[in-house]
Amino acid sequence: MGAFEMMSLVMLIGLAAAVCTTLAYAPQVIKAWRTRQTKDISLGMFVLMVTGVVLWLVYGVLIGDVPLIVANLVTLSLAGTILVLKLRHG
Amino acid sequence: MGAFEMMSLVMLIGLAAAVCTTLAYAPQVIKAWRTRQTKDISLGMFVLMVTGVVLWLVYGVLIGDVPLIVANLVTLSLAGTILVLKLRHG
Repeated sequence: MGAFEMMSLVMLIGLAAAVCTTLAYAPQVIKAWRTRQTKDISLGMFVLMVTGVVLWLVYGVLIGDVPLIVANLVTLSLAGTILVLKLRHG
Repeated sequence: MGAFEMMSLVMLIGLAAAVCTTLAYAPQVIKAWRTRQTKDISLGMFVLMVTGVVLWLVYGVLIGDVPLIVANLVTLSLAGTILVLKLRHG
């Protein structure tokens, strides 16, 4: 495997990682939306997660990193929706 | 504010972001461990999350990024525990 192919493979692994950890929240959004049951979900987890994602977004803007900004905008919309559903359904 | 102070502030925001999004899983681990109730937690979310974190870990090792490796080892142990509790309690 040449240096270029190796670099592409590493980049693909990073991209696959980013897609998985970003879209992971989607099944939880769908489940909480459909069932309206959020009792077992930790409020603390999603308060901390949304806070952290907002900080990542501020950090991404300050260092001008577009992938960081895009990934955290997606995560914010998904994790933020779970937080709203948890606050609504308890 | 000088350039050095500005850089330190940006780094602090990044570190705070990493601490929040890494430790966010802890309250969910504690809740699921204590209550043994995981019905409202999405299995798909934690399967995708653990898969993604393992891929981030592989990526971190391949590019030799120590903060990425450390953060994802912590996340793997916490999100992995939630996945095990979900599989155990349904």
